Amino acid sequence: MFITFEGIEGSGKTTQIRRVSEFLRGAGHSLISTREPGSTDIGAKIRAILLDPANKSLDHRAELLLYMADRAHHIGTVVRPALSDGQLVLCDRYFDATLAYQGYARGLDIGLLRDLHRLVLDDFMPHLTLLLDLPAETGLSRAWKQIASGAREDAETRFEKEKLAFHERVRAGYLDLARQAPERFRIIDALQKEDQVRAEIVQIISERLKRCQEQN
Amino acid sequence: MFITFEGIEGSGKTTQIRRVSEFLRGAGHSLISTREPGSTDIGAKIRAILLDPANKSLDHRAELLLYMADRAHHIGTVVRPALSDGQLVLCDRYFDATLAYQGYARGLDIGLLRDLHRLVLDDFMPHLTLLLDLPAETGLSRAWKQIASGAREDAETRFEKEKLAFHERVRAGYLDLARQAPERFRIIDALQKEDQVRAEIVQIISERLKRCQEQN
Repeated sequence: MFITFEGIEGSGKTTQIRRVSEFLRGAGHSLISTREPGSTDIGAKIRAILLDPANKSLDHRAELLLYMADRAHHIGTVVRPALSDGQLVLCDRYFDATLAYQGYARGLDIGLLRDLHRLVLDDFMPHLTLLLDLPAETGLSRAWKQIASGAREDAETRFEKEKLAFHERVRAGYLDLARQAPERFRIIDALQKEDQVRAEIVQIISERLKRCQEQN
Repeated sequence: MFITFEGIEGSGKTTQIRRVSEFLRGAGHSLISTREPGSTDIGAKIRAILLDPANKSLDHRAELLLYMADRAHHIGTVVRPALSDGQLVLCDRYFDATLAYQGYARGLDIGLLRDLHRLVLDDFMPHLTLLLDLPAETGLSRAWKQIASGAREDAETRFEKEKLAFHERVRAGYLDLARQAPERFRIIDALQKEDQVRAEIVQIISERLKRCQEQN
């Protein structure tokens, strides 16, 4: 099962993936946790280009293609092999992030993004997507606190420097995507305490796994 | 006018672009000469990923997307502005190289490549393409001599390490593309002496420029 975690900056995806992974491993599940962009050697080099604030002049379509290059390599060399191996895959961001950030927030044509995804990734989609939702202002303020305390490594990303309105468009985009695919998406209130969020995610994943096992 | 130079390794594109540029500048033409991949700051970083032999595991579709990211940035920030400015643009490799290398030689679907080009670059095509044609064996032997003598910087590219049969497929691909677009392509016998090749190219470009001026 391929499970993606989505949400704006400061929604707690990274923390939750770590905690949920620990819990599921403890419960005997075989899994990998990964992220986009930058989870392969080549992806790390692509990510360095994408997140370097010096590359502000990066053409928007070039940016999109770099994300997709990272994705094609990541899916081909990490995700698909792990799934074939029968492992759970928990992934921090995937195609919904492209739609929310490049499409809804940046204004690239959603049809173009979907066409590219179909052409390049054969429309490969997650089985389950967990959307950690909270107001953009709260998310950004959390992200900045983590940066100030040194708890976040990617202190100077290009996206975090975007204005609040940009992150509000990202959030609205995610919520719209969730409305369009209610079977795949689960929206989680990320304003809840960390433990509550973790418990809710673990419950959702456990139920899905149980249902899968019953079907097989 | 956007003019591209195409051909296999060792066909003399780089030398000819330099010499033809010098000649045309001397004749009073305003022009830029450029190349793909890697002619912008960001492109140079992408090129480093593409040409690093350590990245042998690079997924073929990821490779394609990296070339296209470089291209989108290059066309958007270098080629289109120069053309708008009324300059001639001489470019070492463009979309035909993608078709010949990734399509004909590597086996990626030609329809996919054309769809991507249309989606991402609005099907932006050169006005004139000069194909420097010679047998793959001769081209490779020339390229290796240049590497051995230190005259080439890109000593360890991934493409140059491909087998002869690969470069033969590239050449056959280029010739097929030229047959499909006879108005745009001019095939030049790259076995001729360097001066002869340069004279032929200058004549073709001069005639085109004259025709354009007459039409305006």
